[in-house]
Amino acid sequence: MKHARVQVDGMVVNATERDGQVVLEDGRRLWQDQVTWLPPLAPVERPRTILALGLNYADHAKELAFKEPPKEPLAFLKGERALNGHRQTTRRPADVQFMHYECELAVVIGRKAKKVRREDAYGFIAGYTVANDYAIRDYLENWYRPNLRVKNRDGATPLGPWLVDTADIPDPMALALKTTVNGKLTQEGSTKDMIFDVPFLIEYFSSFMTLSPGDVILTGTPDGVVDCRPGDVVVTEIEGIGALMNTIA
Amino acid sequence: MKHARVQVDGMVVNATERDGQVVLEDGRRLWQDQVTWLPPLAPVERPRTILALGLNYADHAKELAFKEPPKEPLAFLKGERALNGHRQTTRRPADVQFMHYECELAVVIGRKAKKVRREDAYGFIAGYTVANDYAIRDYLENWYRPNLRVKNRDGATPLGPWLVDTADIPDPMALALKTTVNGKLTQEGSTKDMIFDVPFLIEYFSSFMTLSPGDVILTGTPDGVVDCRPGDVVVTEIEGIGALMNTIA
Repeated sequence: MKHARVQVDGMVVNATERDGQVVLEDGRRLWQDQVTWLPPLAPVERPRTILALGLNYADHAKELAFKEPPKEPLAFLKGERALNGHRQTTRRPADVQFMHYECELAVVIGRKAKKVRREDAYGFIAGYTVANDYAIRDYLENWYRPNLRVKNRDGATPLGPWLVDTADIPDPMALALKTTVNGKLTQEGSTKDMIFDVPFLIEYFSSFMTLSPGDVILTGTPDGVVDCRPGDVVVTEIEGIGALMNTIA
Repeated sequence: MKHARVQVDGMVVNATERDGQVVLEDGRRLWQDQVTWLPPLAPVERPRTILALGLNYADHAKELAFKEPPKEPLAFLKGERALNGHRQTTRRPADVQFMHYECELAVVIGRKAKKVRREDAYGFIAGYTVANDYAIRDYLENWYRPNLRVKNRDGATPLGPWLVDTADIPDPMALALKTTVNGKLTQEGSTKDMIFDVPFLIEYFSSFMTLSPGDVILTGTPDGVVDCRPGDVVVTEIEGIGALMNTIA
């Protein structure tokens, strides 16, 4: 099942998906542009920890002129204000030269996870959604741990549209990802090319910190990132999960 | 006034300070060891963003063999599970060689802050508390942006005891800091030696991201950090604000 959290008539409500439409708890069925979308982090409204990965696809690492892929996950944290919903706008700061999207599989944690073994990892996931983790490359002085001006802008990490139950995604490590900018395909990849896969990441993080329900792991992006300009409509899409739309303002 | 958030008889309640004791909203007066202390982030219970600074005291940068102090704040984020309260324990992970405390002035934001000018910065602060931002140095491969194994362990950032109103701290940039381990003085400094002072930090962060009520800025530590062992009682203290006690487990 696909779950959303949306705002309608000023109220935040949970919803599900039917034929691409939004079905509210009271049975009303609305078009996607009739609601305001929030990040789908059910069962919670606010995450405690938002984790993100740098250079987790070998081709992207190569694109950025790295000779060798990282030997350990390059992880950093994001603040809650960085999040945004489906069909929202993200601001390109004035006077920057390069702002790129990043289509990423987002894993939402469903149960408190501590010292989880790789083989048990999927049991701790609530579901999956799509992320677009924009980066302002002008300020990037260190790929290994991007600073806050690169990766912690308000609303520069849209998540959505849906949180898709794990049961509906039998193999999250073989999903096609793609990004279009104004309808033109600019990025293509597959989650099978992740350097550190989802079970590994849950085992790794939970080995030294506790993951909580609603926590998010952004698992990195494949190659094919290009500069985006105000007015661009960026759609990041993952097979079986959804198409997340964002407009640059 | 000094504010605390404590748990008594299973309930979370707000409290204030009188002669070092805890005064509950219902008028009851308790000793510090009769309550369970939570991080004092009034007016909110949960921060949206927890910011921390690396190398923000020139002497500490020198202690760590840096020839030049940083030219821009070295900021990173922490997850909510890293926080802890006064008089709690923090776990030293098994098989690590060096875990050090860091006595830090913690600034708690009181109003939504966006593009704040330095001269207006104090108006956006709710108050101050004391932080002890432990670091596991074994995993540190980059001082400029410490990784999660160094700086995002569960409960490794005690905050407290009190949130002290800004009105009670006329000059936060001239406060003595000190740390004792088992009663022995190991760290001494003054907030006047910060490289980037509090108004600068609020101007800087709010120039590219929004700060929210309850957000925390950990402003860095002076020199004098030593390894701590299980059983050690570590007290980080800031003049006029309070003495934050933590035991290593």
